[in-house]
Amino acid sequence: MSVPLHFAVKTRLVGLLEELGEGAALPPERTLAKEFGVSRWTMRQAIRELIADGRLRARQGQGTFVATPKLIQPLALVSYTEALRAQGQKPGRELVAFEEIEADELLSEQLGIAVGDPVHRLERVLLADGQPIGLETTYMSVARFPTLRDVLKPEGSLYRCLTDELGVRFGEGEELVETVIATPREADLLKATQSLPMLLLHRTSRDTDGRPIEAVRSLYRGDRVGFRATLRP
Amino acid sequence: MSVPLHFAVKTRLVGLLEELGEGAALPPERTLAKEFGVSRWTMRQAIRELIADGRLRARQGQGTFVATPKLIQPLALVSYTEALRAQGQKPGRELVAFEEIEADELLSEQLGIAVGDPVHRLERVLLADGQPIGLETTYMSVARFPTLRDVLKPEGSLYRCLTDELGVRFGEGEELVETVIATPREADLLKATQSLPMLLLHRTSRDTDGRPIEAVRSLYRGDRVGFRATLRP
Repeated sequence: MSVPLHFAVKTRLVGLLEELGEGAALPPERTLAKEFGVSRWTMRQAIRELIADGRLRARQGQGTFVATPKLIQPLALVSYTEALRAQGQKPGRELVAFEEIEADELLSEQLGIAVGDPVHRLERVLLADGQPIGLETTYMSVARFPTLRDVLKPEGSLYRCLTDELGVRFGEGEELVETVIATPREADLLKATQSLPMLLLHRTSRDTDGRPIEAVRSLYRGDRVGFRATLRP
Repeated sequence: MSVPLHFAVKTRLVGLLEELGEGAALPPERTLAKEFGVSRWTMRQAIRELIADGRLRARQGQGTFVATPKLIQPLALVSYTEALRAQGQKPGRELVAFEEIEADELLSEQLGIAVGDPVHRLERVLLADGQPIGLETTYMSVARFPTLRDVLKPEGSLYRCLTDELGVRFGEGEELVETVIATPREADLLKATQSLPMLLLHRTSRDTDGRPIEAVRSLYRGDRVGFRATLRP
Protein backbone atom coordinates (compact mmCIF):
# COMPACT_ATOMS: atom_id res chain seq x y z
CA MET A 1 0.00 0.00 0.00
CA SER A 2 1.39 3.41 -0.93
CA VAL A 3 0.90 6.28 1.49
CA PRO A 4 -0.15 9.48 -0.27
CA LEU A 5 2.30 12.33 0.21
CA HIS A 6 -0.32 14.63 1.76
CA PHE A 7 -0.76 12.08 4.53
CA ALA A 8 2.93 12.17 5.45
CA VAL A 9 2.62 15.97 5.43
CA LYS A 10 -0.48 15.72 7.64
CA THR A 11 1.43 13.66 10.21
CA ARG A 12 4.24 16.25 10.29
CA LEU A 13 1.69 19.07 10.58
CA VAL A 14 0.09 17.43 13.63
CA GLY A 15 3.47 17.70 15.36
CA LEU A 16 3.63 21.37 14.43
CA LEU A 17 0.10 22.02 15.81
CA GLU A 18 1.09 20.52 19.14
CA GLU A 19 4.09 22.87 19.30
CA LEU A 20 1.98 25.89 18.34
CA GLY A 21 -0.78 25.21 20.88
CA GLU A 22 -4.55 25.84 20.88
CA GLY A 23 -5.75 28.98 19.19
CA ALA A 24 -2.43 29.76 17.49
CA ALA A 25 -2.46 30.88 13.87
CA LEU A 26 -1.12 28.44 11.30
CA PRO A 27 1.56 29.94 9.01
CA PRO A 28 0.35 30.58 5.43
CA GLU A 29 -0.04 27.57 3.12
CA ARG A 30 2.66 28.97 0.82
CA THR A 31 5.21 29.27 3.65
CA LEU A 32 4.45 25.76 4.97
CA ALA A 33 4.66 24.19 1.50
CA LYS A 34 8.09 25.76 1.01
CA GLU A 35 9.27 24.69 4.46
CA PHE A 36 8.07 21.08 4.00
CA GLY A 37 9.39 20.95 0.44
CA VAL A 38 6.01 19.99 -1.09
CA SER A 39 3.59 21.56 -3.57
CA ARG A 40 0.91 23.97 -2.40
CA TRP A 41 -1.68 21.49 -3.64
CA THR A 42 -0.30 18.76 -1.35
CA MET A 43 -0.18 21.16 1.59
CA ARG A 44 -3.76 22.25 0.89
CA GLN A 45 -4.96 18.61 0.92
CA ALA A 46 -3.28 17.98 4.28
CA ILE A 47 -4.71 21.18 5.78
CA ARG A 48 -8.19 20.36 4.43
CA GLU A 49 -8.18 16.97 6.14
CA LEU A 50 -6.98 18.44 9.43
CA ILE A 51 -9.90 20.89 9.23
CA ALA A 52 -12.33 18.00 8.64
CA ASP A 53 -10.77 16.10 11.57
CA GLY A 54 -11.33 19.13 13.81
CA ARG A 55 -7.60 19.74 14.45
CA LEU A 56 -7.53 23.03 12.52
CA ARG A 57 -10.23 25.64 12.11
CA ALA A 58 -10.53 28.05 9.18
CA ARG A 59 -12.00 31.48 9.95
CA GLN A 60 -13.15 33.30 6.87
CA GLY A 61 -10.77 36.10 5.93
CA GLN A 62 -8.67 35.53 9.03
CA GLY A 63 -6.69 32.40 8.22
CA THR A 64 -6.38 28.98 9.82
CA PHE A 65 -5.96 28.30 13.53
CA VAL A 66 -5.12 25.38 15.82
CA ALA A 67 -8.54 24.16 17.01
CA THR A 68 -9.68 23.70 20.58
CA PRO A 69 -10.80 20.12 21.38
CA LYS A 70 -14.23 18.99 20.16
CA LEU A 71 -17.25 19.69 22.35
CA ILE A 72 -18.37 16.40 23.86
CA GLN A 73 -22.15 16.25 24.30
CA PRO A 74 -23.79 13.55 26.39
CA LEU A 75 -26.18 11.13 24.68
CA ALA A 76 -28.87 11.70 27.31
CA LEU A 77 -32.21 13.45 27.68
CA VAL A 78 -30.65 16.69 28.90
CA SER A 79 -30.93 20.21 27.59
CA TYR A 80 -28.34 21.47 25.10
CA THR A 81 -28.07 24.53 27.36
CA GLU A 82 -26.98 22.52 30.40
CA ALA A 83 -24.63 20.27 28.43
CA LEU A 84 -22.86 23.24 26.89
CA ARG A 85 -22.62 25.27 30.11
CA ALA A 86 -21.06 22.24 31.82
CA GLN A 87 -18.21 22.62 29.31
CA GLY A 88 -17.76 26.32 29.90
CA GLN A 89 -19.31 27.36 26.58
CA LYS A 90 -22.04 29.90 26.02
CA PRO A 91 -25.05 28.21 24.41
CA GLY A 92 -27.21 30.02 21.88
CA ARG A 93 -29.87 29.31 19.28
CA GLU A 94 -31.00 31.02 16.10
CA LEU A 95 -34.53 30.41 14.89
CA VAL A 96 -34.75 29.21 11.28
CA ALA A 97 -38.42 28.14 11.20
CA PHE A 98 -41.33 27.52 13.58
CA GLU A 99 -44.30 26.31 11.60
CA GLU A 100 -47.15 23.84 11.53
CA ILE A 101 -46.97 20.90 9.13
CA GLU A 102 -48.98 17.72 8.57
CA ALA A 103 -47.70 14.42 9.94
CA ASP A 104 -46.36 12.03 7.31
CA GLU A 105 -46.26 8.30 7.93
CA LEU A 106 -42.96 8.34 9.85
CA LEU A 107 -43.99 11.27 12.10
CA SER A 108 -47.39 9.72 12.80
CA GLU A 109 -45.61 6.58 13.99
CA GLN A 110 -43.00 8.45 16.03
CA LEU A 111 -45.48 10.83 17.68
CA GLY A 112 -48.37 8.39 18.06
CA ILE A 113 -50.80 10.49 15.97
CA ALA A 114 -52.66 10.03 12.69
CA VAL A 115 -51.20 10.82 9.27
CA GLY A 116 -52.20 14.40 8.42
CA ASP A 117 -52.48 15.52 12.05
CA PRO A 118 -50.88 18.92 12.77
CA VAL A 119 -47.25 18.89 13.95
CA HIS A 120 -45.02 21.71 15.27
CA ARG A 121 -41.82 21.92 13.24
CA LEU A 122 -39.15 23.91 15.07
CA GLU A 123 -35.83 24.37 13.27
CA ARG A 124 -32.95 26.12 15.02
CA VAL A 125 -29.22 26.57 14.55
CA LEU A 126 -27.36 25.63 17.75
CA LEU A 127 -24.53 27.97 18.68
CA ALA A 128 -21.53 27.49 20.97
CA ASP A 129 -19.85 30.77 21.90
CA GLY A 130 -21.64 32.32 18.92
CA GLN A 131 -20.41 29.75 16.37
CA PRO A 132 -22.89 27.41 14.63
CA ILE A 133 -22.26 23.79 15.63
CA GLY A 134 -25.60 22.09 14.94
CA LEU A 135 -28.94 22.30 13.17
CA GLU A 136 -31.81 20.89 15.19
CA THR A 137 -35.30 20.17 13.87
CA THR A 138 -37.89 19.13 16.44
CA TYR A 139 -41.34 17.72 15.66
CA MET A 140 -44.11 17.69 18.30
CA SER A 141 -47.84 17.01 18.19
CA VAL A 142 -49.92 20.21 18.12
CA ALA A 143 -52.85 18.40 19.78
CA ARG A 144 -50.65 17.38 22.69
CA PHE A 145 -48.77 20.71 22.96
CA PRO A 146 -51.32 23.32 21.79
CA THR A 147 -49.71 26.21 23.69
CA LEU A 148 -46.10 25.55 22.63
CA ARG A 149 -45.93 28.57 20.34
CA ASP A 150 -47.14 30.84 23.16
CA VAL A 151 -44.73 29.65 25.85
CA LEU A 152 -41.51 28.82 23.97
CA LYS A 153 -38.96 31.60 23.48
CA PRO A 154 -37.41 30.86 20.06
CA GLU A 155 -33.88 31.32 21.45
CA GLY A 156 -34.58 29.53 24.75
CA SER A 157 -34.22 25.97 25.96
CA LEU A 158 -37.03 23.74 24.67
CA TYR A 159 -36.44 21.17 27.41
CA ARG A 160 -36.60 23.79 30.15
CA CYS A 161 -39.82 25.15 28.63
CA LEU A 162 -41.32 21.66 28.46
CA THR A 163 -40.44 20.73 32.01
CA ASP A 164 -40.95 24.11 33.74
CA GLU A 165 -43.87 25.57 31.76
CA LEU A 166 -45.70 22.52 30.47
CA GLY A 167 -45.03 20.03 33.26
CA VAL A 168 -43.53 17.36 30.99
CA ARG A 169 -41.52 14.65 32.73
CA PHE A 170 -38.94 13.00 30.46
CA GLY A 171 -38.87 9.21 30.70
CA GLU A 172 -36.79 7.38 28.12
CA GLY A 173 -35.59 8.08 24.65
CA GLU A 174 -33.72 6.51 21.77
CA GLU A 175 -31.07 8.05 19.58
CA LEU A 176 -29.56 6.88 16.30
CA VAL A 177 -26.15 8.28 15.36
CA GLU A 178 -24.74 8.20 11.85
CA THR A 179 -22.38 10.20 9.67
CA VAL A 180 -23.69 11.90 6.53
CA ILE A 181 -22.83 14.56 4.01
CA ALA A 182 -24.82 17.78 4.54
CA THR A 183 -27.14 19.17 1.92
CA PRO A 184 -26.01 22.53 0.49
CA ARG A 185 -28.72 24.27 2.57
CA GLU A 186 -27.57 22.59 5.78
CA ALA A 187 -23.89 23.28 5.10
CA ASP A 188 -24.83 26.92 4.49
CA LEU A 189 -26.76 27.24 7.78
CA LEU A 190 -23.82 25.67 9.65
CA LYS A 191 -21.29 27.89 7.84
CA ALA A 192 -19.53 24.72 6.76
CA THR A 193 -18.51 23.29 3.43
CA GLN A 194 -20.14 20.17 2.04
CA SER A 195 -16.82 18.31 2.23
CA LEU A 196 -17.03 18.39 6.05
CA PRO A 197 -18.47 15.14 7.46
CA MET A 198 -21.47 15.66 9.76
CA LEU A 199 -22.93 13.64 12.61
CA LEU A 200 -26.66 13.09 12.22
CA LEU A 201 -28.73 12.19 15.28
CA HIS A 202 -32.34 10.98 15.16
CA ARG A 203 -34.00 11.16 18.57
CA THR A 204 -37.39 10.12 19.85
CA SER A 205 -38.33 10.63 23.48
CA ARG A 206 -41.22 9.67 25.72
CA ASP A 207 -42.51 10.91 29.04
CA THR A 208 -42.60 8.86 32.23
CA ASP A 209 -46.02 7.50 31.16
CA GLY A 210 -44.54 6.28 27.87
CA ARG A 211 -46.30 8.89 25.72
CA PRO A 212 -44.25 10.30 22.77
CA ILE A 213 -42.90 13.84 23.35
CA GLU A 214 -40.83 14.63 20.29
CA ALA A 215 -39.02 13.39 17.22
CA VAL A 216 -35.77 15.27 16.60
CA ARG A 217 -33.31 15.37 13.73
CA SER A 218 -30.03 17.05 14.69
CA LEU A 219 -27.12 17.59 12.39
CA TYR A 220 -23.80 18.44 14.04
CA ARG A 221 -20.52 19.64 12.54
CA GLY A 222 -18.21 16.64 12.74
CA ASP A 223 -15.17 18.88 13.20
CA ARG A 224 -16.62 20.53 16.31
CA VAL A 225 -18.74 17.99 18.17
CA GLY A 226 -18.51 14.46 19.53
CA PHE A 227 -20.89 12.43 21.71
CA ARG A 228 -20.48 10.46 24.90
CA ALA A 229 -22.60 7.49 25.92
CA THR A 230 -22.70 5.58 29.16
CA LEU A 231 -22.72 1.86 28.41
CA ARG A 232 -24.38 -0.99 30.24
CA PRO A 233 -24.29 -4.72 29.55
CA MET B 1 -27.59 30.36 -1.70
CA SER B 2 -27.02 28.53 -4.96
CA VAL B 3 -27.61 24.80 -5.06
CA PRO B 4 -24.84 22.95 -6.91
CA LEU B 5 -26.11 21.03 -9.93
CA HIS B 6 -24.84 17.70 -8.63
CA PHE B 7 -27.10 18.13 -5.61
CA ALA B 8 -30.20 18.49 -7.76
CA VAL B 9 -29.05 15.39 -9.61
CA LYS B 10 -28.53 13.60 -6.28
CA THR B 11 -32.12 14.35 -5.26
CA ARG B 12 -33.42 12.95 -8.55
CA LEU B 13 -31.20 9.89 -8.18
CA VAL B 14 -32.65 9.14 -4.72
CA GLY B 15 -36.05 8.87 -6.37
CA LEU B 16 -34.61 6.46 -8.92
CA LEU B 17 -33.02 4.29 -6.17
CA GLU B 18 -36.38 3.95 -4.46
CA GLU B 19 -37.91 2.75 -7.72
CA LEU B 20 -35.06 0.30 -8.35
CA GLY B 21 -35.13 -1.21 -4.86
CA GLU B 22 -32.43 -2.68 -2.59
CA GLY B 23 -29.65 -4.62 -4.27
CA ALA B 24 -30.54 -3.48 -7.81
CA ALA B 25 -27.72 -2.44 -10.14
CA LEU B 26 -27.46 1.26 -11.00
CA PRO B 27 -27.33 1.96 -14.76
CA PRO B 28 -23.89 3.06 -15.98
CA GLU B 29 -22.77 6.63 -15.20
CA ARG B 30 -22.65 7.44 -18.92
CA THR B 31 -26.27 6.31 -19.46
CA LEU B 32 -27.53 8.22 -16.42
CA ALA B 33 -25.67 11.40 -17.38
CA LYS B 34 -27.26 11.28 -20.83
CA GLU B 35 -30.73 10.58 -19.41
CA PHE B 36 -30.48 13.42 -16.86
CA GLY B 37 -28.92 15.79 -19.40
CA VAL B 38 -25.83 16.53 -17.28
CA SER B 39 -22.09 15.97 -17.68
CA ARG B 40 -20.49 12.72 -16.56
CA TRP B 41 -18.48 14.73 -14.01
CA THR B 42 -21.68 16.03 -12.38
CA MET B 43 -23.21 12.54 -12.36
CA ARG B 44 -20.00 11.14 -10.81
CA GLN B 45 -20.13 13.76 -8.00
CA ALA B 46 -23.74 12.87 -7.19
CA ILE B 47 -23.02 9.12 -7.20
CA ARG B 48 -19.94 9.63 -5.02
CA GLU B 49 -21.98 11.44 -2.37
CA LEU B 50 -24.70 8.79 -2.41
CA ILE B 51 -21.98 6.19 -1.80
CA ALA B 52 -20.63 8.21 1.15
CA ASP B 53 -24.20 8.55 2.50
CA GLY B 54 -24.61 4.78 2.31
CA ARG B 55 -27.42 4.87 -0.27
CA LEU B 56 -25.32 3.29 -3.01
CA ARG B 57 -22.57 0.72 -2.78
CA ALA B 58 -19.72 0.29 -5.26
CA ARG B 59 -18.42 -3.25 -5.77
CA GLN B 60 -15.04 -3.34 -7.46
CA GLY B 61 -15.32 -4.50 -11.05
CA GLN B 62 -19.03 -5.16 -10.70
CA GLY B 63 -20.57 -1.69 -10.77
CA THR B 64 -22.74 0.27 -8.35
CA PHE B 65 -25.77 -1.07 -6.47
CA VAL B 66 -28.65 0.27 -4.37
CA ALA B 67 -27.46 -0.28 -0.80
CA THR B 68 -29.26 -2.11 1.97
CA PRO B 69 -29.96 0.03 5.07
CA LYS B 70 -27.07 0.73 7.46
CA LEU B 71 -26.36 -1.78 10.21
CA ILE B 72 -27.48 -0.24 13.49
CA GLN B 73 -25.27 -1.31 16.39
CA PRO B 74 -26.29 -0.70 20.00
CA LEU B 75 -24.11 1.56 22.13
CA ALA B 76 -23.97 -1.02 24.93
CA LEU B 77 -21.53 -3.48 26.47
CA VAL B 78 -22.60 -6.33 24.23
CA SER B 79 -20.61 -8.51 21.88
CA TYR B 80 -20.33 -7.52 18.23
CA THR B 81 -21.30 -11.12 17.45
CA GLU B 82 -24.65 -10.88 19.24
CA ALA B 83 -25.44 -7.42 17.89
CA LEU B 84 -24.82 -8.52 14.33
CA ARG B 85 -26.71 -11.82 14.61
CA ALA B 86 -29.70 -9.91 15.98
CA GLN B 87 -29.79 -8.14 12.60
CA GLY B 88 -29.59 -11.33 10.59
CA GLN B 89 -25.99 -10.75 9.49
CA LYS B 90 -23.11 -13.19 9.73
CA PRO B 91 -20.39 -11.72 11.95
CA GLY B 92 -16.72 -12.35 11.26
CA ARG B 93 -13.29 -11.05 12.24
CA GLU B 94 -9.91 -11.00 10.58
CA LEU B 95 -6.84 -10.76 12.77
CA VAL B 96 -4.50 -7.89 11.86
CA ALA B 97 -2.24 -7.92 14.93
CA PHE B 98 -2.07 -9.47 18.41
CA GLU B 99 1.02 -8.18 20.17
CA GLU B 100 2.37 -6.89 23.45
CA ILE B 101 3.18 -3.21 23.77
CA GLU B 102 4.12 -0.88 26.63
CA ALA B 103 1.47 1.36 28.18
CA ASP B 104 1.81 5.02 27.32
CA GLU B 105 0.39 7.72 29.57
CA LEU B 106 -3.16 7.49 28.19
CA LEU B 107 -3.31 3.68 28.36
CA SER B 108 -1.87 3.67 31.90
CA GLU B 109 -4.69 6.01 32.92
CA GLN B 110 -7.42 4.07 31.08
CA LEU B 111 -6.29 0.64 32.29
CA GLY B 112 -5.20 1.64 35.81
CA ILE B 113 -1.60 0.45 35.36
CA ALA B 114 1.83 2.12 35.32
CA VAL B 115 3.41 3.71 32.25
CA GLY B 116 5.58 1.04 30.59
CA ASP B 117 3.52 -1.90 31.90
CA PRO B 118 2.80 -4.60 29.31
CA VAL B 119 -0.47 -4.28 27.38
CA HIS B 120 -2.19 -6.66 24.93
CA ARG B 121 -2.89 -4.93 21.63
CA LEU B 122 -5.47 -6.82 19.57
CA GLU B 123 -6.35 -5.38 16.18
CA ARG B 124 -9.07 -6.98 14.06
CA VAL B 125 -11.16 -6.13 11.03
CA LEU B 126 -14.86 -6.63 11.78
CA LEU B 127 -16.84 -8.29 9.00
CA ALA B 128 -20.57 -8.40 8.28
CA ASP B 129 -21.53 -11.11 5.79
CA GLY B 130 -17.86 -11.16 4.76
CA GLN B 131 -17.59 -7.42 4.08
CA PRO B 132 -15.28 -5.24 6.24
CA ILE B 133 -17.30 -2.72 8.24
CA GLY B 134 -15.00 -1.83 11.13
CA LEU B 135 -11.46 -1.89 12.48
CA GLU B 136 -11.28 -2.58 16.21
CA THR B 137 -8.18 -2.19 18.37
CA THR B 138 -8.48 -3.41 21.95
CA TYR B 139 -5.96 -2.73 24.72
CA MET B 140 -5.92 -4.83 27.92
CA SER B 141 -3.50 -5.20 30.81
CA VAL B 142 -1.25 -8.28 30.49
CA ALA B 143 -0.86 -8.47 34.28
CA ARG B 144 -4.63 -8.65 34.70
CA PHE B 145 -5.25 -10.99 31.73
CA PRO B 146 -2.06 -13.10 31.52
CA THR B 147 -3.75 -16.04 29.73
CA LEU B 148 -5.63 -14.01 27.09
CA ARG B 149 -3.37 -15.16 24.24
CA ASP B 150 -3.96 -18.79 25.20
CA VAL B 151 -7.73 -18.68 25.46
CA LEU B 152 -8.82 -16.18 22.79
CA LYS B 153 -9.50 -17.48 19.29
CA PRO B 154 -8.37 -14.65 16.98
CA GLU B 155 -11.60 -14.86 14.97
CA GLY B 156 -13.85 -15.38 18.00
CA SER B 157 -15.85 -13.07 20.24
CA LEU B 158 -13.61 -11.31 22.78
CA TYR B 159 -16.57 -10.58 25.09
CA ARG B 160 -17.69 -14.21 25.08
CA CYS B 161 -14.11 -15.31 25.85
CA LEU B 162 -13.85 -12.80 28.70
CA THR B 163 -17.15 -13.75 30.29
CA ASP B 164 -17.16 -17.52 29.63
CA GLU B 165 -13.44 -18.38 29.90
CA LEU B 166 -12.08 -15.71 32.23
CA GLY B 167 -15.10 -15.04 34.44
CA VAL B 168 -15.19 -11.28 33.77
CA ARG B 169 -18.46 -9.53 34.66
CA PHE B 170 -19.03 -6.33 32.70
CA GLY B 171 -20.20 -3.41 34.83
CA GLU B 172 -20.27 0.00 33.16
CA GLY B 173 -18.50 1.63 30.27
CA GLU B 174 -18.14 4.91 28.46
CA GLU B 175 -18.03 5.52 24.74
CA LEU B 176 -17.08 8.62 22.77
CA VAL B 177 -18.39 8.87 19.20
CA GLU B 178 -16.93 11.18 16.58
CA THR B 179 -16.52 11.38 12.85
CA VAL B 180 -13.03 11.37 11.33
CA ILE B 181 -11.19 10.80 8.08
CA ALA B 182 -9.40 7.45 7.97
CA THR B 183 -5.66 7.16 7.56
CA PRO B 184 -4.60 5.52 4.27
CA ARG B 185 -3.76 2.31 6.19
CA GLU B 186 -7.19 2.23 7.85
CA ALA B 187 -9.04 2.95 4.60
CA ASP B 188 -7.07 0.14 2.98
CA LEU B 189 -7.95 -2.38 5.72
CA LEU B 190 -11.63 -1.40 5.43
CA LYS B 191 -11.53 -1.57 1.60
CA ALA B 192 -12.78 2.02 1.61
CA THR B 193 -11.51 5.23 0.09
CA GLN B 194 -10.24 8.07 2.22
CA SER B 195 -13.07 10.30 1.04
CA LEU B 196 -15.56 8.14 2.96
CA PRO B 197 -16.39 9.60 6.42
CA MET B 198 -15.82 7.18 9.28
CA LEU B 199 -17.31 6.88 12.76
CA LEU B 200 -14.65 6.59 15.45
CA LEU B 201 -15.60 5.13 18.83
CA HIS B 202 -13.40 5.24 21.91
CA ARG B 203 -14.58 2.83 24.59
CA THR B 204 -13.43 2.10 28.12
CA SER B 205 -15.20 -0.50 30.22
CA ARG B 206 -15.03 -1.69 33.81
CA ASP B 207 -16.15 -4.81 35.62
CA THR B 208 -18.82 -4.90 38.31
CA ASP B 209 -16.12 -4.10 40.91
CA GLY B 210 -15.13 -0.97 38.98
CA ARG B 211 -11.81 -2.34 37.74
CA PRO B 212 -10.79 -1.38 34.16
CA ILE B 213 -11.21 -4.19 31.60
CA GLU B 214 -10.28 -2.62 28.28
CA ALA B 215 -9.68 0.49 26.22
CA VAL B 216 -10.98 0.15 22.66
CA ARG B 217 -10.64 2.25 19.51
CA SER B 218 -13.11 1.21 16.81
CA LEU B 219 -13.34 2.77 13.40
CA TYR B 220 -16.51 2.04 11.43
CA ARG B 221 -17.38 2.71 7.81
CA GLY B 222 -19.85 5.61 7.93
CA ASP B 223 -21.64 4.34 4.84
CA ARG B 224 -22.40 0.95 6.42
CA VAL B 225 -22.90 1.47 10.16
CA GLY B 226 -24.90 3.62 12.56
CA PHE B 227 -25.30 3.45 16.35
CA ARG B 228 -28.29 3.40 18.66
CA ALA B 229 -28.30 4.70 22.22
CA THR B 230 -30.97 4.45 24.88
CA LEU B 231 -31.38 7.84 26.55
CA ARG B 232 -32.25 8.72 30.12
CA PRO B 233 -32.77 12.12 31.72
